[in-house]
Amino acid sequence: MRRVLLTVILALLGAPRVLPAQCDVRVLVAYYSQTGHTRIMAESVAAGARSVVGTQVTLASVEAVDTAQLRAAHAVIVGSPVQLANVAVPVMEFLNRWPFPDGMRDKVGAAFVSGGGISSGEEETQLAILRAMLIHSMIVVGGGEWSQAFGAAAVTDEAPWATLPRGQVAAQFLEKAVRLGRRVATITRQLRCP
Amino acid sequence: MRRVLLTVILALLGAPRVLPAQCDVRVLVAYYSQTGHTRIMAESVAAGARSVVGTQVTLASVEAVDTAQLRAAHAVIVGSPVQLANVAVPVMEFLNRWPFPDGMRDKVGAAFVSGGGISSGEEETQLAILRAMLIHSMIVVGGGEWSQAFGAAAVTDEAPWATLPRGQVAAQFLEKAVRLGRRVATITRQLRCP
Amino acid sequence: MRRVLLTVILALLGAPRVLPAQCDVRVLVAYYSQTGHTRIMAESVAAGARSVVGTQVTLASVEAVDTAQLRAAHAVIVGSPVQLANVAVPVMEFLNRWPFPDGMRDKVGAAFVSGGGISSGEEETQLAILRAMLIHSMIVVGGGEWSQAFGAAAVTDEAPWATLPRGQVAAQFLEKAVRLGRRVATITRQLRCP
Amino acid sequence: MRRVLLTVILALLGAPRVLPAQCDVRVLVAYYSQTGHTRIMAESVAAGARSVVGTQVTLASVEAVDTAQLRAAHAVIVGSPVQLANVAVPVMEFLNRWPFPDGMRDKVGAAFVSGGGISSGEEETQLAILRAMLIHSMIVVGGGEWSQAFGAAAVTDEAPWATLPRGQVAAQFLEKAVRLGRRVATITRQLRCP
Repeated sequence: MRRVLLTVILALLGAPRVLPAQCDVRVLVAYYSQTGHTRIMAESVAAGARSVVGTQVTLASVEAVDTAQLRAAHAVIVGSPVQLANVAVPVMEFLNRWPFPDGMRDKVGAAFVSGGGISSGEEETQLAILRAMLIHSMIVVGGGEWSQAFGAAAVTDEAPWATLPRGQVAAQFLEKAVRLGRRVATITRQLRCP
Repeated sequence: MRRVLLTVILALLGAPRVLPAQCDVRVLVAYYSQTGHTRIMAESVAAGARSVVGTQVTLASVEAVDTAQLRAAHAVIVGSPVQLANVAVPVMEFLNRWPFPDGMRDKVGAAFVSGGGISSGEEETQLAILRAMLIHSMIVVGGGEWSQAFGAAAVTDEAPWATLPRGQVAAQFLEKAVRLGRRVATITRQLRCP
Repeated sequence: MRRVLLTVILALLGAPRVLPAQCDVRVLVAYYSQTGHTRIMAESVAAGARSVVGTQVTLASVEAVDTAQLRAAHAVIVGSPVQLANVAVPVMEFLNRWPFPDGMRDKVGAAFVSGGGISSGEEETQLAILRAMLIHSMIVVGGGEWSQAFGAAAVTDEAPWATLPRGQVAAQFLEKAVRLGRRVATITRQLRCP
Repeated sequence: MRRVLLTVILALLGAPRVLPAQCDVRVLVAYYSQTGHTRIMAESVAAGARSVVGTQVTLASVEAVDTAQLRAAHAVIVGSPVQLANVAVPVMEFLNRWPFPDGMRDKVGAAFVSGGGISSGEEETQLAILRAMLIHSMIVVGGGEWSQAFGAAAVTDEAPWATLPRGQVAAQFLEKAVRLGRRVATITRQLRCP
């Protein structure tokens, strides 16, 4: 009965719109990692995105992402180590080969990073990614909390985190990464799956 | 009959969602202006937003905007003169009194500015507004073209524009303002009026 | 005899240059503080500057600094709380009333901040101050270490620092503040006291 | 006679200091260019630096600069095209291979760029270079005018400059480049040649 009514409703609405449960959102999490820190952050971002029902998440190194994957994605979350308060070269090369100017239009974009010192470029690197996304005419979001406004950042080489075993990232930063992934998937769903 | 069905439908969907044609999007264009340049840009932004069917646009000086207006808006576009590569004080005071941390969550945000010299703070001022919006957990968009990626900016005091009559803004910058307003209204509609 | 010779020398050199031991450098540390965090940072910056022989340090709230003090200073180090990833309004008002465009030319400038969360605007706020200084034609320096490249920043409201007694700042951030003050005094001496 | 007196004076001052006329300042202008715009800007920056007596200027593509040249320079002015509001990849690779963390300490740094649209990344690209220089513990300066606070930027692909013959840069931007070179040489002289 309910299904019949829904069919009627959809016909009345006159829209080729599918139901939320049947609408898939594709989130691409693309990262570059040298020490493993950014990769761990990427895995947490991906886990956060997967926690939103109906989200298909692709997790890949920036070198492995092709244009078809970029075009298919509804959202792209880019991760980079912090190098001189900027993205690493492979991340910049990745952003430069995105289809321009219209290939990424209106997709959702977000950023995450891992850096050495506190206030040593993490903000700037996230913002460098978001600025590139704005030039690609994307819709940009952060982590949705004032403590991770620009996305999600990990600090790995300054006290009290410098003493963690090599390659590990503190839980408080992984939580930010999960939250970012969840937020991006949720907002992208809101945009794509009415 | 159709109204009855709609009532049934809405009750079944459990959502207060109205039909696209009946879904209004509220865009608030809030600006501060000393010389009139930013006000002219604001009027163009508002005109651009109004050109999207179903958009209610409020155009107001930042001092005149109250919290109820902020809460009611689905999108907020903020305009400022460029002062030391940053927003003017009344704009900063305005951003500081927005309901925080959740009052602006998931609203759409965008920025426009007018500045004196080329590459003399226009980018930074637009980005200062967008960064504040990200801290307010908003969804951020630019003008949707690579030549106005961060919103819309006017230059007024450097050649060839320094010779315009006082208070005037060149057409090429007003066009960017219109385009920004239209883009914000369109994307906000996509988010709010499925 | 030596004094006579010096007079001769100075006349010959045609420069009003005094000897290093007799050359004082004036550093102004100007801050705004609400919770006390930025004030504590300011005191550490001042202590660092004072540790350089021949440095006269003035420590003052931004509201208390007059134009004569600004003109007399060879270096100005500005401190602000982080508010929406930007300077506090009194700091912006302070920067706006500096003598422009030439009153601050070639003075040395630097920045320090205190913020709540990690990577939540500390970088951007330091950079907002530095950008304003560049527009004032100043010479800009950071803390001289990659972990404090943009000046000195304290984090006060996120783990593990959120549990410190109210108003306290962790030692690792105060050390950065001291280092910043010392670096600014040293470089200003190099510029002013050959 | 004057030379004898100078010798006496220098001995009395007890400093291994040479006279200004005999003190050379080495300025390295390093750029990357694809279309020729940044190269033309670089030539103007170099001309400006050369106009300051006692300045040795090296003009080179970033790929051609070796570490010995970097270490020998007292000032480095870096030029880049604007790509996604950031430096081009060869410029980032150049900044990444500078001797770190102390090889560039206290050298003077500055930036220039050429970009397509107005307010389309010129500021951000200059600032990306300056931020990298701050992380290298350099002393940073802009062009010394409010209209070129962050260095020197050219716009080449938006009206009224889009119609210039390919590869040309408008005079008003070349003037900024010359002024930047002159300012960097002057300030570096003040630091190195007391």
